[in-house]
Amino acid sequence: MTSAPTSPLTDPWPKSPVLQTAYRARVAATDLAPLPRAAKDDALLAMADALEVRTKEIVEANAADVARAREAGTSEAIIDRLTLTPERVRAIASDVRDVVALPDPVGEVVRGSTLPNGIDLRQVRVPLGVVGIIYEARPNVTVDAAALCLKSGNAVLLRGSSSAYHSNTALVKVLRDAVGGSGLPADAVQLVPGEGRDSVAELMRARGLVDVLIPRGGASLIRAVVEQSTVPVIETGTGNCHVYVDAQADLDMAVEILVNSKAQRPSVCNAAETLLVHQDIAAAFLPRALDALAEAGVTVHGDERVVALAEQLEGSKATVVPAVVEDWETEYLSYDIAAAVVDSLDAAVAHIRLWSSGHTEAIVTTSQMAARRFTQLVDSTTVAVNASTRFTDGGQFGFGAEIGISTQKLHARGPMGLPELTSTKYIVTGDGHTR
Amino acid sequence: MTSAPTSPLTDPWPKSPVLQTAYRARVAATDLAPLPRAAKDDALLAMADALEVRTKEIVEANAADVARAREAGTSEAIIDRLTLTPERVRAIASDVRDVVALPDPVGEVVRGSTLPNGIDLRQVRVPLGVVGIIYEARPNVTVDAAALCLKSGNAVLLRGSSSAYHSNTALVKVLRDAVGGSGLPADAVQLVPGEGRDSVAELMRARGLVDVLIPRGGASLIRAVVEQSTVPVIETGTGNCHVYVDAQADLDMAVEILVNSKAQRPSVCNAAETLLVHQDIAAAFLPRALDALAEAGVTVHGDERVVALAEQLEGSKATVVPAVVEDWETEYLSYDIAAAVVDSLDAAVAHIRLWSSGHTEAIVTTSQMAARRFTQLVDSTTVAVNASTRFTDGGQFGFGAEIGISTQKLHARGPMGLPELTSTKYIVTGDGHTR
Repeated sequence: MTSAPTSPLTDPWPKSPVLQTAYRARVAATDLAPLPRAAKDDALLAMADALEVRTKEIVEANAADVARAREAGTSEAIIDRLTLTPERVRAIASDVRDVVALPDPVGEVVRGSTLPNGIDLRQVRVPLGVVGIIYEARPNVTVDAAALCLKSGNAVLLRGSSSAYHSNTALVKVLRDAVGGSGLPADAVQLVPGEGRDSVAELMRARGLVDVLIPRGGASLIRAVVEQSTVPVIETGTGNCHVYVDAQADLDMAVEILVNSKAQRPSVCNAAETLLVHQDIAAAFLPRALDALAEAGVTVHGDERVVALAEQLEGSKATVVPAVVEDWETEYLSYDIAAAVVDSLDAAVAHIRLWSSGHTEAIVTTSQMAARRFTQLVDSTTVAVNASTRFTDGGQFGFGAEIGISTQKLHARGPMGLPELTSTKYIVTGDGHTR
Repeated sequence: MTSAPTSPLTDPWPKSPVLQTAYRARVAATDLAPLPRAAKDDALLAMADALEVRTKEIVEANAADVARAREAGTSEAIIDRLTLTPERVRAIASDVRDVVALPDPVGEVVRGSTLPNGIDLRQVRVPLGVVGIIYEARPNVTVDAAALCLKSGNAVLLRGSSSAYHSNTALVKVLRDAVGGSGLPADAVQLVPGEGRDSVAELMRARGLVDVLIPRGGASLIRAVVEQSTVPVIETGTGNCHVYVDAQADLDMAVEILVNSKAQRPSVCNAAETLLVHQDIAAAFLPRALDALAEAGVTVHGDERVVALAEQLEGSKATVVPAVVEDWETEYLSYDIAAAVVDSLDAAVAHIRLWSSGHTEAIVTTSQMAARRFTQLVDSTTVAVNASTRFTDGGQFGFGAEIGISTQKLHARGPMGLPELTSTKYIVTGDGHTR
């Protein structure tokens, strides 16, 4: 015979540091969930202020990571992403203030009606609970993720790269002090202890304590999490994006969109990786496109028809090499693009279905029918008509912030803002209704 | 050097029967996705008609399953669920016609705006693609799931219980003939081949071919799928639902809601399994509640205070046995209920947090403050105020149909209707916009 326990925390208290951290996050999440916007915004403002006031200790901690990275011979591009300067810390604090200005998704009534029997039904947004983020060596993600999760009433478990260990430790200390100082539970923001793969593995099995895992970064990490996690996962990131130039297209527009999609910032997931050109326009478009790509420093990995056409060009600066099968599925993230001539719009769609990662595909066309068919048939997070693939972005979409870009179909698809960090619950209100 | 392939079906064609089935489903899903409502509704009407016209062969096939179940000594309750009569087949056909009347979720614009740069942004619903349903020996689910998936533009992979093998084979044959006859791909509706656990295991690893798995039925099956699947899963079902009677409550209403929640249909997931009573109202409420539960044939598994109170009752027919720890977490699905006296509303919430499966919890109260606090603090798919737990149901909620009740937070939570069988995509339309 047992009385009903009155606290979820009496027993059992887990032994492992990772699970203890997750447990503390769950307790914090329970406290966060019913908080009104004002309380959360106060904490966010305190976070932003603290980042600015304590910039020195953050930059010093970061210097240790940068020094270690240099010793390890890390590439300059990655060191640049890792580095925090006082200006960058100010910019990060400013991003937190932008989150303050966003509406609180929690409490939003998604659906509501009075049922025929008089019951009032409301579906309202609630926090997910505990959100785990596994990410690469970008210290700004530490703060972004903490701010977005706090705003949406979630406790966050941050598992950054070990190469940013000192930076993340310093940042999280500053954030926790600010959150605690404003009267909210400091455990709303926690680093996952441990640097090895083991702690990630524990996190992936913490079903019941962790509500969702969002892996960001390398394809191998994301695949490992998807395959091994019993905690629900939101897959992010890989972008093998296509630009299709239709038989009827404004050539100037097509060149501009192509070059912008490929070369404006090649290292990001919404950059274009493959060009598909309708055969009817290939002879008119490709010479200009190849020149423009060459001018932007882009190497073209062309199929037989692209290579044949390039070989006929006189005085062209085009850099065209023959494509191999792997080119069609490669996310270069560099000044490279695969290119093929296709027989029809439907052939372009078939190519995209076969090879695309389902991130973003663009069509350039003056034909209403082609635009409509392409948007109907292509099943990616985003289909762009006469616009660059580079617009697939939470900031560009007006979401104000982004926790990642989901390339899966469940829960969230495309750029994820604050609403995507929530679930819902139904509230059923009656006057003693029974069935 | 390679030309771009133009069909996703040229290579590789998988060897295993399960994966071949999934592959055919993916092809069918591609054809279904852009279909307008009228084409899908025509196929649904053809399905309903075919079920009625071919009732005889369905009932005969079912008789073989029923005979085999009887030989195996299956319980009458399960045999009843398995059995198809001409009347039941007509009712199933009628359910399909109800689905015809529901709006098509595909194409619904969920969000839309013109961005500051003039780009038009639209988020529209699209089918998930290939939906796998793993379910128990209820042949009506075979038809329900096929109808709901077809209406929402999805291809369905049906993995029913082997004890309903002949019934499901006959039903799917009828449905496929109807779908194919109306000009849609018959492979929109398929049984997963094989009867053993191996074929379920293959389905769970068919990531990329199957977009979501929805396991229905026993807790052990659902746990196995959640733990082993690399395909995203929507967890359904377990309902350890609570009724909390607050310090201030209409006693008549409380008794009615309690008995209805527990005893109107004890075998379903939205039936109540635990009663929590505020200590201030226990002496007034429990004698009436225990009598009413006894009259409904319910055995009460009481904590110390409930047992002590029951022992003081004279002339009561109450059936009260001492509760053990397991009672707080048990989904009886029978004429049993756990019962405890709690010190406060917050203690009730703490008990629910610790033990509930997060399905449905009801509060009976006349206090606005108590109702508000309970709905804020309880984090389950559904919180009922002065209403029976039995209302958590797609039909009751006005969704017209239900593919299951999700008890997870990601993607869908609570009763899942047609919109929950969709994902979304963004359509970005510009006039040559670049960044």
